[in-house]
Amino acid sequence: MDVFACIFQRRDVRHFLDVNIPDEIVDEALLAAHHAPSVGLSTPWRFVVTRNAQIKQDVQNLYESTRENVEKKFQLSEEKISIHNKLKLAAIQDSPLGVAVFCEEPSEDEYTIGVVGSRETLHWSCACAIQNFWLALTAKGYGAGWVSILNFKKMNSIFSVPESWHFMGYLCVGKPATDYGGQPMLSKEGWRQRPPKATIIRR
Amino acid sequence: MDVFACIFQRRDVRHFLDVNIPDEIVDEALLAAHHAPSVGLSTPWRFVVTRNAQIKQDVQNLYESTRENVEKKFQLSEEKISIHNKLKLAAIQDSPLGVAVFCEEPSEDEYTIGVVGSRETLHWSCACAIQNFWLALTAKGYGAGWVSILNFKKMNSIFSVPESWHFMGYLCVGKPATDYGGQPMLSKEGWRQRPPKATIIRR
Repeated sequence: MDVFACIFQRRDVRHFLDVNIPDEIVDEALLAAHHAPSVGLSTPWRFVVTRNAQIKQDVQNLYESTRENVEKKFQLSEEKISIHNKLKLAAIQDSPLGVAVFCEEPSEDEYTIGVVGSRETLHWSCACAIQNFWLALTAKGYGAGWVSILNFKKMNSIFSVPESWHFMGYLCVGKPATDYGGQPMLSKEGWRQRPPKATIIRR
Repeated sequence: MDVFACIFQRRDVRHFLDVNIPDEIVDEALLAAHHAPSVGLSTPWRFVVTRNAQIKQDVQNLYESTRENVEKKFQLSEEKISIHNKLKLAAIQDSPLGVAVFCEEPSEDEYTIGVVGSRETLHWSCACAIQNFWLALTAKGYGAGWVSILNFKKMNSIFSVPESWHFMGYLCVGKPATDYGGQPMLSKEGWRQRPPKATIIRR
């Protein structure tokens, strides 16, 4: 698939068909992820892949409790509350595959080219890897939804990975049931519109 | 260009031909950037585009002073120092275009879907936009090098943008002079090798 078509068609998917995704496709997409740029060639991304029902249940419970806390915290207009209540913001149990992404940061004593300005650059490398993964899935007719309404600190124990790994997001992966009319779901549902162009400043 | 080919061919470019990049290509690549996923559809990326020699000089000076500080801080082996000294880690003045990327974060009082787990998710959206920009340039026969050996706090004043914007990186953009033999420059120069595959854990 052409890269521009792929970039424009990629959606943050929350609605999946009840169809499996083969391991070969997942592996191809993870290889694409691994070809992301990484600061100082640190390749700090760690992918934890699961089809396990109990783990998905644990993530779902965490998502629900995190979401409830958020809704209490902010004072939204009645119109916003009404839209927000209807928004499907995750598909943890109705997607065949879950991928939890973590960043394993090199020690601060170890010299990694490029992290001097900010150690966050390591996380940004992982974000680029996630974007590659997502585009690769899109090109193969699959899709992903990035869930970040989660208590990040609890994800390490759910996935039995070291506490020092930095959680980046949980991706619900599978075959999309819709393309949301070629726009982001949050636009389609009337939550928020995307400006037609990015803010570009000339200096 | 096929998306997989593009992902595999994209390089972090530090060596450019003395060839201009037309505004139309830059605009196309920035439109691709704008189609990145963003947390809560926040589209927080801000692109500051420059061809100005004085601004490039200011960035170059900041890069050099930041790099000197780093080299003093870490105790590298003689072999590593010898390689490090030869590494070209930026092409600020020998690329026709510079793009400084910032994140304009929405207020903490404003409800943005998905930032509850970590406000860093806003930066990760910008990193995905940078990856899209980079892939789009690659597909058009151009390239970029992400420079982060910079004192981040000084970039806002160099580019005359609000202090509250969070600096993400400075991209040197132009026509690549080499593809580094189809591998990352840091591999080619013997600094570090990329593992053949990402770390994938099954749960």
